[in-house]
Amino acid sequence: MQAVHRIHNFNAGPAALPLPVLEKIRDSFLDFQGTGMSIVEMSHRSKQFEAVLADAVARTRRLLTLDARHHVVFLQGGATLQFAMIPMNFLADGRSADYVNTGTWSTNAIKEARVLDKPVRVAASSEDRQFTYIPADIAFSPDAVYAHITSNNTIRGTQWAQFPATGAVPLVADMSSDFMSRPFDPAPFGLVYAGAQKNIGPAGVTMVIVREDLLARVPETLPVMLKYTTYTSKNSLYNTPPCFAIYAVQLVLKWLEETVGGLEKMAAINAAKAARLYGTIDASGGFYRGTAEPASRSRMNVTFRLPSEELEKRFLDEAVGNGLGGLKGHRSVGGCRASIYNAVSREAVEALADFMKAFAGRNG
Amino acid sequence: MQAVHRIHNFNAGPAALPLPVLEKIRDSFLDFQGTGMSIVEMSHRSKQFEAVLADAVARTRRLLTLDARHHVVFLQGGATLQFAMIPMNFLADGRSADYVNTGTWSTNAIKEARVLDKPVRVAASSEDRQFTYIPADIAFSPDAVYAHITSNNTIRGTQWAQFPATGAVPLVADMSSDFMSRPFDPAPFGLVYAGAQKNIGPAGVTMVIVREDLLARVPETLPVMLKYTTYTSKNSLYNTPPCFAIYAVQLVLKWLEETVGGLEKMAAINAAKAARLYGTIDASGGFYRGTAEPASRSRMNVTFRLPSEELEKRFLDEAVGNGLGGLKGHRSVGGCRASIYNAVSREAVEALADFMKAFAGRNG
Repeated sequence: MQAVHRIHNFNAGPAALPLPVLEKIRDSFLDFQGTGMSIVEMSHRSKQFEAVLADAVARTRRLLTLDARHHVVFLQGGATLQFAMIPMNFLADGRSADYVNTGTWSTNAIKEARVLDKPVRVAASSEDRQFTYIPADIAFSPDAVYAHITSNNTIRGTQWAQFPATGAVPLVADMSSDFMSRPFDPAPFGLVYAGAQKNIGPAGVTMVIVREDLLARVPETLPVMLKYTTYTSKNSLYNTPPCFAIYAVQLVLKWLEETVGGLEKMAAINAAKAARLYGTIDASGGFYRGTAEPASRSRMNVTFRLPSEELEKRFLDEAVGNGLGGLKGHRSVGGCRASIYNAVSREAVEALADFMKAFAGRNG
Repeated sequence: MQAVHRIHNFNAGPAALPLPVLEKIRDSFLDFQGTGMSIVEMSHRSKQFEAVLADAVARTRRLLTLDARHHVVFLQGGATLQFAMIPMNFLADGRSADYVNTGTWSTNAIKEARVLDKPVRVAASSEDRQFTYIPADIAFSPDAVYAHITSNNTIRGTQWAQFPATGAVPLVADMSSDFMSRPFDPAPFGLVYAGAQKNIGPAGVTMVIVREDLLARVPETLPVMLKYTTYTSKNSLYNTPPCFAIYAVQLVLKWLEETVGGLEKMAAINAAKAARLYGTIDASGGFYRGTAEPASRSRMNVTFRLPSEELEKRFLDEAVGNGLGGLKGHRSVGGCRASIYNAVSREAVEALADFMKAFAGRNG
């Protein structure tokens, strides 16, 4: 059998998935577990699919050390729908929430709350230096219903190294681009949400982890698909969920737990991958310039510039020719970006670092 | 290579997909079109994915003979989110809409509009005879913003043979369970929506066809993901769409257009399949009883009872033993149901009809 052509994939999302997961999906695609049906042809109420869903939830609970206070549910609509659902569900009584603005996605989250005419306060912002850093020493309001942060900023390449202390105010975090890349203490979090298409699966499903006490705030007057209680009370099966995407998430979590060995190990691998690329940047004598301030650098999205846009174009073209794809920066900021999510191997990062060094040598 | 085990799949949804579509997905799953990436690892803004999306839209336009007034977009959240989005988008000014109640899904659509405190009127209902028929001679209000119907009722097995005349009032139809099963005149329709997981793909994507004139009614004060104009103005790419599900839909539409030969041919095949099963029921001397009134029988979901629940259980068990799956009726009504969507082959229907005849002979 001919080897399958595969590149090193540095896409920002949808992004690389673990090869064993893709192979498993392929090999069972016409006959899932001897049922004579594809996973995409099966009832979401079949015992086989219910087992997939239960396993995905159980693995999430173990990986993140959740206790019974946290529910794990699957929604649709991406992080962008969460930007609206969070204030719809938690700010129905006129109380306010705090937001930290660290870039495009935080800005959009604030905008969606304001479209709904919800009173939200920007407790801190890094807009003054083009979102190149994570704010420190933030004064959160003790009266806020929640404090919202974006844990990792794909476009600017910044990341919270430690989550802020908010006292009794529940943290709400968009973890779309670094979810399951490192362990964290779940206790302070009232809600965590993550579009799957960076670290845990394909596009089309959003994992939400919501703490029991916040569910008491959900008003009855919302459409059923926009209430978190619909998902927590029906185990994500009020209507037909995105079955294929949930199945892929389950396989990725199994890989993370059984092959990688959990989030501590994943975090160490991710730290080493990021150190290799930032080291290459910092050792290039200024040929490569990281765009994020060093203390705020992301371990998921390594953003950098070259001496000219012409060199950046040549860099991207030659990278593709060397089997290194997806390195173009976000269209809103330009430059280059290496997204090195969980499924991007050390081998891929080594290949990129070697290429970067050689390219700088030829063009520096 | 060993033959893959496949059953005859009569699931109500998620449901059978065409075997060539499943094979195509499997065979390209690790390397899509020579990119060295899976379709689930590619940017939704890549030229490859944009071509998939454009092809799905173009095929929809040709299959349904749409003109420029109709937009074709892809959403998430299933038909259930549409139950809320339709009144949110079109009834912001206090005007009312008409609904025809033909079963569970219509009932839920009405309920969601009322949760939002929108003034909706039930113009007709078949609840008086347990939703076993489609109402006729309905007096729609000429002042209604739209008239909502459910084109096919999966649970009760009824279907509109012809759509009602509503004059100048735009029809809005939930076509989740018979979309693309037959041609129809798109002109009277202001909006058509369909969860993919019956006739056109896997769960996780909803196709919406919306007419230009209705978009003027969309208020600015809705969250971005809940406004139809977000999808029509950004070609379904405001945020990351459910790429895999859209890809599968594109392949199903290609199969429908190029292998089946279009909707006239599909409708003839579906009519023959339904006639074969209803003929078997009607020729059984009362052993099988169709639950829908004959003039309202669905060509997609053939619902029937046996003389006793004990016989129904034996029927379902023996059917599975004969490679005929998914024949259990909806949990809310019991009995038996054969869902015979586009991808269910004539061979599968013949096998079921033969089994039904033999079972009646052994047990009648």
